[in-house]
Amino acid sequence: MLGASARTGGTMTRGKDGAMTSGTAMKGGGYYSLATVGAKHVIDGATPLVLEALAAMAPERAKGLFTMADMGCADGGTSLAMVEASLRAVRKAAPERPIAMVYTDQPTNDYNALFQNVGTRLEAIGNLTVFASATSFYRQILPPGSLDLGFSATAMHWLAKKPCDIPDHVQAVGARGAALEAFAAEARTGWGAILASRAIELKRGGRLVLVNFCKDEAGNYLGWTGGVSMFDTFNRIWRDFLAEGAITADEYTRMTLPQYYNTLEEFSRPLKGPDGPAYGAGLRLEHIETRIVPCPFAADFKHHGDRARFASAYIPTLRSWTESTFHGALDADRSELERRALIERYYGTYEALVAAQPEGHGMDYVHAYMVIRKD
Amino acid sequence: MLGASARTGGTMTRGKDGAMTSGTAMKGGGYYSLATVGAKHVIDGATPLVLEALAAMAPERAKGLFTMADMGCADGGTSLAMVEASLRAVRKAAPERPIAMVYTDQPTNDYNALFQNVGTRLEAIGNLTVFASATSFYRQILPPGSLDLGFSATAMHWLAKKPCDIPDHVQAVGARGAALEAFAAEARTGWGAILASRAIELKRGGRLVLVNFCKDEAGNYLGWTGGVSMFDTFNRIWRDFLAEGAITADEYTRMTLPQYYNTLEEFSRPLKGPDGPAYGAGLRLEHIETRIVPCPFAADFKHHGDRARFASAYIPTLRSWTESTFHGALDADRSELERRALIERYYGTYEALVAAQPEGHGMDYVHAYMVIRKD
Repeated sequence: MLGASARTGGTMTRGKDGAMTSGTAMKGGGYYSLATVGAKHVIDGATPLVLEALAAMAPERAKGLFTMADMGCADGGTSLAMVEASLRAVRKAAPERPIAMVYTDQPTNDYNALFQNVGTRLEAIGNLTVFASATSFYRQILPPGSLDLGFSATAMHWLAKKPCDIPDHVQAVGARGAALEAFAAEARTGWGAILASRAIELKRGGRLVLVNFCKDEAGNYLGWTGGVSMFDTFNRIWRDFLAEGAITADEYTRMTLPQYYNTLEEFSRPLKGPDGPAYGAGLRLEHIETRIVPCPFAADFKHHGDRARFASAYIPTLRSWTESTFHGALDADRSELERRALIERYYGTYEALVAAQPEGHGMDYVHAYMVIRKD
Repeated sequence: MLGASARTGGTMTRGKDGAMTSGTAMKGGGYYSLATVGAKHVIDGATPLVLEALAAMAPERAKGLFTMADMGCADGGTSLAMVEASLRAVRKAAPERPIAMVYTDQPTNDYNALFQNVGTRLEAIGNLTVFASATSFYRQILPPGSLDLGFSATAMHWLAKKPCDIPDHVQAVGARGAALEAFAAEARTGWGAILASRAIELKRGGRLVLVNFCKDEAGNYLGWTGGVSMFDTFNRIWRDFLAEGAITADEYTRMTLPQYYNTLEEFSRPLKGPDGPAYGAGLRLEHIETRIVPCPFAADFKHHGDRARFASAYIPTLRSWTESTFHGALDADRSELERRALIERYYGTYEALVAAQPEGHGMDYVHAYMVIRKD
């Protein structure tokens, strides 16, 4: 597993915001800045799917504990409304069943922030207990046959490890040849491990609702839906740093995000019968579709038209999930001060670029929405 | 519920150490400084009771998930060896049963430290999942009928709230009249709530092993086993501060620790049949005894004989679980700097007192060890 940096960044995409690096205070108790609005939109948009899955499961037809899990929960903020709506639906359908809500993320997640955010919000549902787990979703998190409803959003694109450095790009969307193959293989192994672990955990009739970054049917992915490619911009600035001698070739190459965006085919493959391993473990793909949720910063810019404001609002969210990887790519023999300065200049360059020519910049979310049943 | 201060102090008695205030780094991975040795001794000493309780439960006679909980776990460090030994015993008796280990504490506990400390230590047991809960043990933490083995050490003396200020002392051991009655009543209500919640959570045949601070048959309690009374010393220095005008009468009075040490009679009462409410809920007191675990600092002093060393090692552990209450007692209109200075001088005075005349100082642990069965 990678250390704190990579996945923290990942969870920050979803659950936290650029505020940590931009200096805006993040208030507790349901307030979130613009930087999490997009991630929350994605989850809010998935809520009807979750409620449909719940209705199909018919919690009233079973007894005993009903367990829901949010895997890759970060600080729990962006999913709280969805979790509350879902568990209220369970409570309504099955007034007598005890409910366990399990928030899970990797060991380096901030669980103190999670417990603070969730607070007493779910208490009114009644007969409900809340837990956290620090076990990666690449492994078994819950006891066998204990999970009714598993949810995950904008988390599973973070690989368990970086299979190799990408020689000429910062993200697998720009990888070719052997590097692309290595990333695809790592993602295939990882997705298989995710499904195998969930197959063990799910009760029969239980459901997974997974909202994962993807490469959609038209080739869109996060930050690339026409316009300027976010990852190409990341790469171009980093390459310019190399060209001007600000960073070494090794530093350029090491900046490789441990992420991969599966296609629908890649997501579906292990779930196809009769030979797919997840299919063999009892998992059935009930539903898969892709959706694009527009970048809230770019949308905001269309209203206010202020280039500098757009740039200064937009960059912190990119920074929140990439900074630790950039930082980690820099040579260990650089002083911390030197590293900080390079990082500041890097994001400053990106911001100046957006402010100078904002058109086409933005981070539209491109997700695959899946519902998977355990038979 | 009280805020972070009180119970954080409480868990620090057990799980953390004076290192946080003394400047000694606490290493992860099983290293603990002297300040936690006493708390760990207490839990290690309770391990045979836990293993006996487990043997009586015979995990091999049941199927399905085996759930153990450590309630008031703090950072999980001092109980790790006991938890590991217990779950290894479960694994040996019932190789096929999945195990869930649930660490619980109040919402303000440091769960990041907990997950770091537990790390991968329990993984080798196999088919085991680890969770945390941030729900107070005065409430239901686990689903009904789900708990096999509940453990708690050196945590349940922290009351859910301070019922009143004690006019002439800092702790209930020095309270009289109406104040003493209010503390006893609060503790009675709290102990009732603890047992009622556990009665809901426990499976039939499940056990609780509780190691709680108490007032023993001879009237001993934490820091008072003959010699100098730790709490009287706390009170005397605080009263001197009042006498010299360093603090106000309100500040003197507000320094009231929200703690109570039950007697064996008070612990046993709700468990007595046929009218005890916990008895009525199916709980049976299988075993109760008191033990004294000697202060490791005083024991160390007997060997090295260095007064200053004893004083400087001993005070941080007292400070770790009292400082936040002293801090909170100071007027809100004092500057933080002023408060810090008063607090420093307070513990400095205590340290000088111990260094000048160390004989009789020390914090012997006085606990009641209980085993409770659910019928």
